[in-house]
Amino acid sequence: MPTPSSDFRRWLLEVRPAVDHALAGALSPTGLPDVPVSLRAAMAYSLLGNGKRVRPALCLLAAEACGGSVANAMPAAIACEMIHAYSLIHDDLPCMDDDALRRGRPTVHVQFTEAVAVLSGDALQSLAFQTLAAQTDVHLIAAQVQQLACAAGASGMVGGQQLDMDAEGRTTDLAAVLKLHSAKTGALLRAAIFLGVSSAGGLPLAWEAYANSVGRLFQITDDILDATSSTAELGKTAGKDSSAGKATVVAVLGLEGARALAAAEVAAALAALDTIAPIHRRAELADLPRFLGTRSA
Amino acid sequence: MPTPSSDFRRWLLEVRPAVDHALAGALSPTGLPDVPVSLRAAMAYSLLGNGKRVRPALCLLAAEACGGSVANAMPAAIACEMIHAYSLIHDDLPCMDDDALRRGRPTVHVQFTEAVAVLSGDALQSLAFQTLAAQTDVHLIAAQVQQLACAAGASGMVGGQQLDMDAEGRTTDLAAVLKLHSAKTGALLRAAIFLGVSSAGGLPLAWEAYANSVGRLFQITDDILDATSSTAELGKTAGKDSSAGKATVVAVLGLEGARALAAAEVAAALAALDTIAPIHRRAELADLPRFLGTRSA
Repeated sequence: MPTPSSDFRRWLLEVRPAVDHALAGALSPTGLPDVPVSLRAAMAYSLLGNGKRVRPALCLLAAEACGGSVANAMPAAIACEMIHAYSLIHDDLPCMDDDALRRGRPTVHVQFTEAVAVLSGDALQSLAFQTLAAQTDVHLIAAQVQQLACAAGASGMVGGQQLDMDAEGRTTDLAAVLKLHSAKTGALLRAAIFLGVSSAGGLPLAWEAYANSVGRLFQITDDILDATSSTAELGKTAGKDSSAGKATVVAVLGLEGARALAAAEVAAALAALDTIAPIHRRAELADLPRFLGTRSA
Repeated sequence: MPTPSSDFRRWLLEVRPAVDHALAGALSPTGLPDVPVSLRAAMAYSLLGNGKRVRPALCLLAAEACGGSVANAMPAAIACEMIHAYSLIHDDLPCMDDDALRRGRPTVHVQFTEAVAVLSGDALQSLAFQTLAAQTDVHLIAAQVQQLACAAGASGMVGGQQLDMDAEGRTTDLAAVLKLHSAKTGALLRAAIFLGVSSAGGLPLAWEAYANSVGRLFQITDDILDATSSTAELGKTAGKDSSAGKATVVAVLGLEGARALAAAEVAAALAALDTIAPIHRRAELADLPRFLGTRSA
C-alpha cells in the first residue's frame, strides 16, 4: 500500500487495526456475554463494518497530543464509535431518514429488521457507557461518562437530529443550520477530542475552539459531498439532503459559498491549534482540517 | 386519601412526590438546556406520566434498608426510571410490540411521531447516564454506570426484548421464558435495588437472591395480569401477550400454574430477605413480594 500523503489519513490507517481489535473484543462473547445471536450479529454488522473510524482516531490523536497513550484512550475511542454506530442505525430507520444504503451496504433495518435495528442501536448506546465504566480510573470514568452522555443526548446529537427533522422542507438561515450541525454531528466529534484529552489528563477546555472548528468543518464538507458526489462514491444515497429538503450549508449558501465557508473554517481550526501547543502529533492535528476540507467521501 | 394497607404501596406513595420532583428537575431547561421543544415534550410525556415509579421506589427502599438516604439514592432512582421509560417508548413502536395505549394514554409514537419516539427514547437513555455522572462521588458513579449499563444493554434488558421477539409464536418451555424475563424485566429491577444498595455503601451481592426473586415475581404477575385484566384496568392493551403468541409464564404453565409459581416466588423472596438483615424498612421489603403477588395493575 502506498504511503498516504496526508498525515491525518496516515494516522487513520495507523490506529485502525488497534481500534478494530478493541471494537471486536468489546462485542465478543467474552466482553459481552449472553447476547441473543441476531442482536449480536446486527451490532457487529454496524460496529465492525467499513466505517472510517474518524471519531476513535480523533480521540486517540488528542490523547497522544496531550502526552497520553493510545492504550489509555482506547475505551473512550471505541465508546465514541459505539455512539456513532448506534446513531447511524437509528437515523437510517424508515421513520427517520429512511435510507437503505450505508457505507456501500444495506442499512441495518434492511439487512435485519426494523425491530433489530432499534434494539441493536439501543444496545450499542448502553455498551458505550459500559465500556467507559469498565476502566480503572474512577475520576476518568466520571468525567468521560458526563462528556459522552451530554454530547450524545437531548442537548447534543439526539437534539440535533430532532432539529434536523424539524427543519426539513422549511426555509432556514446559516445560523440555524450551523446550530443544528453543531448538535447533530459536532457534539460527538468534539466529545471524541475531549475524551481523548481527558484520558491523558489534559484540559478539554483548551481544545474547545479547535474541536468546534473540526466539528463544523466535518459537516460543511459532508453537505458539499452529498451535493457533489455519486452514490457509489459516498457509499450512501447521494443528493438525499436536497431531495429531502434538508437544512444544509449548501442549501443556504450554495456550493461555492459552502466551499468558501469550509476554507475559512480550515483557517480557523489552524489558528485554534496554535493556541493549544500540543506535545505530540502536531502534524496530524494540523492536517486534520485540510483532510476534512479535501476528502472525497 | 385512606392509608393503604400495604407497606410497600405506602412507600410508593411516600416517595413519589420527591421522585417526580427530581424527574421534572432533570428534564427542566436548567437541568437539560438547549433541547428542541418537541423532543423535550415527548421525553416529559413519557417520563413524567402516571407510571407507578416502582423502580425508583425499589432503589430508594434498598438505600434506606442499607442505612443510606433517599437524597443520596435519588440520582440512581431517577436514572432507573429514565431507562424504564425509554424502553417502554421503544417497545411500543410499530416495528416492535406495536401498542397504541400505555398507562391509559396514547403511546409516544401515536401522540407525537415514530421519529420523535425513537429519539426521545434514545435521549432518555443518555440522560440516565448523564444523571449518574453528575453525582460527586466518583467511585459511586463508576459502580452505578457499570451496573446500569450492563442491566440495560445487550446482556440485559435489550437482549431480553430481542429474546422476547425471537420467541414470538414459537413453542417454548419454562426455563426459556424465565431466562427471557430475567433479562427483559428482571435486569432493570435488580439494578434498581443494586444501585440503591451501592448508594448507601452496601454490598449488592448480598441482595442478589432477593432481587432475582422480585424480578421474577414482577414478570410472573405481569403475565397473569395480562391474561386476566381488562384494557381499562391495565391502562394498556390487555390479552396482547396471548394474541401475539408471546412467550409467557401463563402460556407455558396455564393460569393456575402461574399463580402457584408466583406463590412459590413470594416465599423464596421472603426467605432471601432473611439472609440480608436490613437495617431499616424491613416491613416494606417483606411486603414487596406480597404487593407484587396481589397487585391489580
